[in-house]
Amino acid sequence: MKIAILGAGAMGSLFGGYLSQKNEVCLIEINQGIVEKINRYGVKILRNGEERVLYPKATADSSGIGCMDLVIIFVKSMHTRNALSQNKHLIGGDTYVMTLQNGAGHEQVIAEFVPPERIIIGTTEHNSSIVEPGCVHHGGGGKTTIGLCRGDSSVLQPIVDSFSACGLPAVVTDDVEKAVWKKLLINISASVLTAVLQVKLGYILSDEHAWAIAQTLIREAVAVAKAKGIDLDAEQSIADVKALLAGAKDGYTSIFADLRDGRRSEVDTINGYVVSLAKKLQVPAPSHEFVVNLVHALEGKKKQ
Amino acid sequence: MKIAILGAGAMGSLFGGYLSQKNEVCLIEINQGIVEKINRYGVKILRNGEERVLYPKATADSSGIGCMDLVIIFVKSMHTRNALSQNKHLIGGDTYVMTLQNGAGHEQVIAEFVPPERIIIGTTEHNSSIVEPGCVHHGGGGKTTIGLCRGDSSVLQPIVDSFSACGLPAVVTDDVEKAVWKKLLINISASVLTAVLQVKLGYILSDEHAWAIAQTLIREAVAVAKAKGIDLDAEQSIADVKALLAGAKDGYTSIFADLRDGRRSEVDTINGYVVSLAKKLQVPAPSHEFVVNLVHALEGKKKQ
Repeated sequence: MKIAILGAGAMGSLFGGYLSQKNEVCLIEINQGIVEKINRYGVKILRNGEERVLYPKATADSSGIGCMDLVIIFVKSMHTRNALSQNKHLIGGDTYVMTLQNGAGHEQVIAEFVPPERIIIGTTEHNSSIVEPGCVHHGGGGKTTIGLCRGDSSVLQPIVDSFSACGLPAVVTDDVEKAVWKKLLINISASVLTAVLQVKLGYILSDEHAWAIAQTLIREAVAVAKAKGIDLDAEQSIADVKALLAGAKDGYTSIFADLRDGRRSEVDTINGYVVSLAKKLQVPAPSHEFVVNLVHALEGKKKQ
Repeated sequence: MKIAILGAGAMGSLFGGYLSQKNEVCLIEINQGIVEKINRYGVKILRNGEERVLYPKATADSSGIGCMDLVIIFVKSMHTRNALSQNKHLIGGDTYVMTLQNGAGHEQVIAEFVPPERIIIGTTEHNSSIVEPGCVHHGGGGKTTIGLCRGDSSVLQPIVDSFSACGLPAVVTDDVEKAVWKKLLINISASVLTAVLQVKLGYILSDEHAWAIAQTLIREAVAVAKAKGIDLDAEQSIADVKALLAGAKDGYTSIFADLRDGRRSEVDTINGYVVSLAKKLQVPAPSHEFVVNLVHALEGKKKQ
């Protein structure tokens, strides 16, 4: 397959590297320094103390490389529209556009560029962090779950086969929205609180007050999901997040690092997505409104 | 009058100093170092670059000093019960017990020691901060408003006359609860957010997201107040808080300092009071629940 990946950050570099083993992969990255580094030295992936180098191409200007079979978006969510707009010549009538970004609701933006039958949404259990440009630490692996926004997702079988053959085990599901929500429930509760409180994941479980907020956020989000027709159970979801936290006590989140370093966070596609759905479906989500404003107020502090 | 003041902190020292000009005042303070300093050097009050020294008595052990006409509580709210319990021999059948503490609901604890007809609640516009033990900076003055918890507040006229004569202008009102709520509305919105965000008061107005949270907190609290029969208007209350913030942009709050320095805050008698009333009156106050847990989670961080 001809695959373009928008954004050579931690996740883009990881997927670009692995997928380049059996596909023609080009990383599209606006930072020219990263592009040159990847073209000269490849993508370095560190895992369990071992270093591996893989060689996707990279470019800052995708205008000459033609239509792709698959475009995967790995820019931060607030840059999705801009990235697709600048690279729309990569998208032809047969191109799939995939998002594995954090949060949810990305398909609303992607639908401005491709019909829903060509939009793949999904979620991945891989995590990756940047060591330096072109070099990432692959902290943990797992399953990648994808499905079509509309239509029969089984047509995606060749894509998951290729992902799996490249060391990125993947499955197709017709209930991808539920899979996306399950990950979303972690991000809208535990992750956002690690940012607000500036703590490790374990603190959200060990501090009774932090855990009380997390549970309220999960309950509100599950009520919104149910109103949208997604079959989730609040108590089970709380138990799932609890189990995840118990196994990742020393973990930090990307949104934690965003606030620590004074960057704009992705809260608008995490809790902000719950707020916008809640308004549309007329379900109360006051704690999500609170936390979205709180994160933005913390972001604004750095600009003072 | 024979007056005992529980707690020789910033406000206790200020009131103790001023009131000692025309009353027999004793500051009750568990920190023996502060007691000795005040007894040796008096209370120093700095205001507008001038220093004034006044000479109330101070003691760590009030057991020998007999019944008071007035006991004023200026310990932090979480120590009210303990302070009254240790000093209950100061309270006779004719003693009034007064709280001018931040927050509200203190009368519930005080009522364990004196009947409601002897409880004076109120609010003061004075602010004071500790420069060093026994020395305070009197940042700004204003009116002190008091009233009885139950009964005809006009019996308090001699007390406000004495306060006023000592340089602490005071008035009696039969609607003291409303005066307490007006101050509470500042504390439950702007003050608590300066603590959570670790910013000056002005930021709560200048950042649209912080101001959005503040307005939600005020609206929820006013709904609770109305359910309690207190005549407040949400839009007017928001305008009042806005005007106050506009005039105090560079101000810091005591709850800001509590969280900055890793101390336990008074949130339980500020937003926590709104939460407990909301539960009792079955009015929703989800943002107050959120902020109480948030402050406790931030307090807990320091203990890790």
